[in-house]
Amino acid sequence: MSLPLPTRADVLAAATRIKGHVLRTPLLNSAALDALAGRRIHLKAECLQPTGSFKARGAWAALSALPEAVRARGILAFSSGNHAQGVARAAAAYGVPAVIVMPADAPQVKIANTRALGAEVVLYNRLTEQREVIGAALSESRGLTLVKPYDEPEVIAGQGTIGLEILEDMPAGWAGEVITCCGGGGMTAGIALALEGSAMRVRPAEPAGFDDTARSLASGSVQRNATLGGSVCDAIVTPEPGQITFPILQRLCGPGLVVSDDEALQAMVLAFRHLRVVLEPGGAVALAAALFRPDLGEEVVVIGSGGNVDEAIFAEALARFPG
Amino acid sequence: MSLPLPTRADVLAAATRIKGHVLRTPLLNSAALDALAGRRIHLKAECLQPTGSFKARGAWAALSALPEAVRARGILAFSSGNHAQGVARAAAAYGVPAVIVMPADAPQVKIANTRALGAEVVLYNRLTEQREVIGAALSESRGLTLVKPYDEPEVIAGQGTIGLEILEDMPAGWAGEVITCCGGGGMTAGIALALEGSAMRVRPAEPAGFDDTARSLASGSVQRNATLGGSVCDAIVTPEPGQITFPILQRLCGPGLVVSDDEALQAMVLAFRHLRVVLEPGGAVALAAALFRPDLGEEVVVIGSGGNVDEAIFAEALARFPG
Repeated sequence: MSLPLPTRADVLAAATRIKGHVLRTPLLNSAALDALAGRRIHLKAECLQPTGSFKARGAWAALSALPEAVRARGILAFSSGNHAQGVARAAAAYGVPAVIVMPADAPQVKIANTRALGAEVVLYNRLTEQREVIGAALSESRGLTLVKPYDEPEVIAGQGTIGLEILEDMPAGWAGEVITCCGGGGMTAGIALALEGSAMRVRPAEPAGFDDTARSLASGSVQRNATLGGSVCDAIVTPEPGQITFPILQRLCGPGLVVSDDEALQAMVLAFRHLRVVLEPGGAVALAAALFRPDLGEEVVVIGSGGNVDEAIFAEALARFPG
Repeated sequence: MSLPLPTRADVLAAATRIKGHVLRTPLLNSAALDALAGRRIHLKAECLQPTGSFKARGAWAALSALPEAVRARGILAFSSGNHAQGVARAAAAYGVPAVIVMPADAPQVKIANTRALGAEVVLYNRLTEQREVIGAALSESRGLTLVKPYDEPEVIAGQGTIGLEILEDMPAGWAGEVITCCGGGGMTAGIALALEGSAMRVRPAEPAGFDDTARSLASGSVQRNATLGGSVCDAIVTPEPGQITFPILQRLCGPGLVVSDDEALQAMVLAFRHLRVVLEPGGAVALAAALFRPDLGEEVVVIGSGGNVDEAIFAEALARFPG
């Protein structure tokens, strides 16, 4: 049985719903950065979204698509990061409950940030409990609706609105590569749908060692990562491409790109220095590909997907890659 | 004899000329930042402009206003900072020469950055030479047109386009304070002209010890700073309000606001942490006022005017004000 896949029409519908509720982000440029890269780079600054990442789009798209009575009962999400904050923000704006299930050993700052956005945080023990079991019980007893981070049609449609804005901002007919920071593939699939029928081609970028999407696209079937820990790009590490996202990527995307952790960290520093935006390492992998991979065109668009960086990691990278 | 002052019509005309040549910047928000400030803050992210500051606007406005034959002979500017880069960028785009007169002891990185934008840098000895004499000789022998950094009607009109965008982005009829980072007053005067007739009121912010504008507004006559060195907000330190800018500020602005260097540095860190943008200390004084001055409304717009920060100063501030 095949799952219902979102289409470009869903992206257009999501754009209507999220307008005015998330930031219409700019494409940023720097002549100095272009000189370093040897190509013209346009960075789509999604780190400027209210919760610091593109996830604000998909969360709003998903919540706004629910029937009012369903939404009013509340929203459930599993996340320790950017998706949780996007969902919490949208739920607060709608005045409906948000319950975020997080591991008890998640960083205190992430738990605090999610609570500050008005969400109820339910902690679980990763060694002895399954979040799906906890979530199912909550969902049943309180009528909460689960919003998944990427394998969710309306979330994909919401992230795809990034692609519609790129179409507006680049010259009509521009034929070039749009490089994404790719985890589960929700943003990548959404942008690919938005750009379907244009002359642009989406290229997913991933951290080395966690290149499940690149290997899946190359082999034609879903490949898993060997491990999930140990990358500084943790925000975009997922076990494997999604069941909904992968068929879209397979149909519409070019080959994946892979960058090292050091390249992602250096890209993060160069974005600070030349574009004056703050990226997290996982949010800088697309920029890293544009800076350090030779096999790309002379003008590219890259997504700067998020800026919720650990400040100690940031300070260390600034010192390692001086100007 | 009174000088010809720019008007709101000049700001509207500048907006038409610069459209597509500088960034249309967003207003940024953060619920966490608002909680710290005790008021709603909208930050106009001018640090995202191609050369890292709003100066890109005024430079483009000034060059585009020149007759083609005059512009073709070349542009002259005195500056060691953001204005030089704005002028160099606009001149390069027009394919005309730019000569920037800089002190020989200016930071090497600023000299290099200005040259990288295609400008000819003429160095002078601050102890034995006068830049005005060098400039006058260059202007005469080569037919260069001097573009001053703030006391220049078309530059003021260009910076004022920031105000027109704020009018577009805030709700119609919004009556609140727009806080600027104020040096010579070019941006402040331009924004005040753009907002003339609206319910918004411009409040210039300055670093303590260099509050010439606040004192001039309070006393009703131009007051000088006692010294020009020693502020970490060096980008916005000028001797006194301009001859063209001050009459505009006097007619249209509310009282000045003053922040300490430490408040500016902390605001810079909070912009990094919660808005994911890079400000220089001088570019963060308006945000500092919104964060730390009690005598302001419950919702304010602040200009984040520039992001060309010394990275050692930035790293030190990050360590001093941990999250």
